[in-house]
Amino acid sequence: MSEDIKLDRAELDARIRRAPYHQWLGLSVTEAGDGEITIEVPWRDEFFVNAEAGYAHGGILAALVDLAADWAIATKLGRPFPTIDMRVDYHRPALKGTLRVKGKVIRLGSSFSTSEARVEDADGKLLASGRGTYATGTGK
Amino acid sequence: MSEDIKLDRAELDARIRRAPYHQWLGLSVTEAGDGEITIEVPWRDEFFVNAEAGYAHGGILAALVDLAADWAIATKLGRPFPTIDMRVDYHRPALKGTLRVKGKVIRLGSSFSTSEARVEDADGKLLASGRGTYATGTGK
Amino acid sequence: MSEDIKLDRAELDARIRRAPYHQWLGLSVTEAGDGEITIEVPWRDEFFVNAEAGYAHGGILAALVDLAADWAIATKLGRPFPTIDMRVDYHRPALKGTLRVKGKVIRLGSSFSTSEARVEDADGKLLASGRGTYATGTGK
Amino acid sequence: MSEDIKLDRAELDARIRRAPYHQWLGLSVTEAGDGEITIEVPWRDEFFVNAEAGYAHGGILAALVDLAADWAIATKLGRPFPTIDMRVDYHRPALKGTLRVKGKVIRLGSSFSTSEARVEDADGKLLASGRGTYATGTGK
Repeated sequence: MSEDIKLDRAELDARIRRAPYHQWLGLSVTEAGDGEITIEVPWRDEFFVNAEAGYAHGGILAALVDLAADWAIATKLGRPFPTIDMRVDYHRPALKGTLRVKGKVIRLGSSFSTSEARVEDADGKLLASGRGTYATGTGK
Repeated sequence: MSEDIKLDRAELDARIRRAPYHQWLGLSVTEAGDGEITIEVPWRDEFFVNAEAGYAHGGILAALVDLAADWAIATKLGRPFPTIDMRVDYHRPALKGTLRVKGKVIRLGSSFSTSEARVEDADGKLLASGRGTYATGTGK
Repeated sequence: MSEDIKLDRAELDARIRRAPYHQWLGLSVTEAGDGEITIEVPWRDEFFVNAEAGYAHGGILAALVDLAADWAIATKLGRPFPTIDMRVDYHRPALKGTLRVKGKVIRLGSSFSTSEARVEDADGKLLASGRGTYATGTGK
Repeated sequence: MSEDIKLDRAELDARIRRAPYHQWLGLSVTEAGDGEITIEVPWRDEFFVNAEAGYAHGGILAALVDLAADWAIATKLGRPFPTIDMRVDYHRPALKGTLRVKGKVIRLGSSFSTSEARVEDADGKLLASGRGTYATGTGK
């Protein structure tokens, strides 16, 4: 595990945007604390799985769960780590509109760590939630 | 569960491309049989999570596992169904190049069904795998 | 979904003990509220996976996660429901001693519901955690 | 990862029985090959979650998925490894009768490995299936 280096919201926001897929998703970090992070995601019409029914593809929500869970760890350890595996539960269709995803560390370990995330709509309604295991023993 | 309507490869290919996110991913159905489907995905540079290290974001692979598992069910039941939950295991970094994902039904049920998928690179090396539960009792 | 019938701690305790496997596990319900439940589990030496190293089999912890998540739903809906699928994360070895498992509803739905649970040792240290999906649309 | 030491069926059978919980479950290894294992489990009435309806507790099936997935790795690496996390899907009620669980390695890695398992009844009907991640980088 890398040393405990805390990054502030602005640094996390700058770093998370380096990933081309994050740029495409349009992510911005709105809050970041000790093991917790909130990320905002503006809508893109490419998110639709079904344009008539008007809701997002599950793979978009899965990406948000994975990245928020991982970057919650980054608030504690200074960077994200490779995902070993993840689970996502889908609770409600994610209709067109801004999405918000909140990541939170469950348990930091020297080799593996577990973290969870919740995706909400602009009104705070829970759309999806899940958790992942991250290889926090991995060197840079 | 809808009646058992089998669609051929060309029909599945046409239907899967209707989803805007699938168009963005550039999917094409290359094989489809009784409970199994193979989908090809050309590379896009927006897939990168890390452009220097040169590999895809886990959320892209999660989307591929989810959609291939779901469309494997479509080969049996005529359409995909809402994802209840899913799991993805990441085995190797997905380097720049064509991706191939193979979905396969594990068990069809009247209310919910389980299906799995494997993401491979162009050489057939296993990159990620997983499984999902789908609400096959849901009306159209 | 059955009507919203809340059971108190004593009723939940009586009902949970009806299951032969729960009797073998020695469960008792110590707290139960609106969507939350706490269950205590005295140690049995059959729990060991490794008697020299002195810790419990992962299958015991998996059973505790599953049943606490399910009975958290029972605090809201009056009874447990069939498990569709579940995930367990193992955080620390569960050494000989009383175990405590806390279940909590994440989201109730008319067909499927999601609930989570945490297994702790007597000092409140987190040993395992997880979540499951339950078929709350199932008739009695 | 420990060196690649293959154990034969009889050795695996002897080693798997050392665990007190495995003794209680009454496990016997009936087949074991290169990355695959089959384990038989005689019925015990303590397995019931519901004695009238007559089927096993999900926690019993979860234990079988976990241990068969882990011991499939043991056929390749000479011993089981700590479970990091696991998923179980429940397909049908497991009625009173002998259970059979088949584990199979999905991918061996130097730090963590993924393996899957299927629980069947005496007629080969699929009751539950799942997969787990194991810490194969862990020293003895």
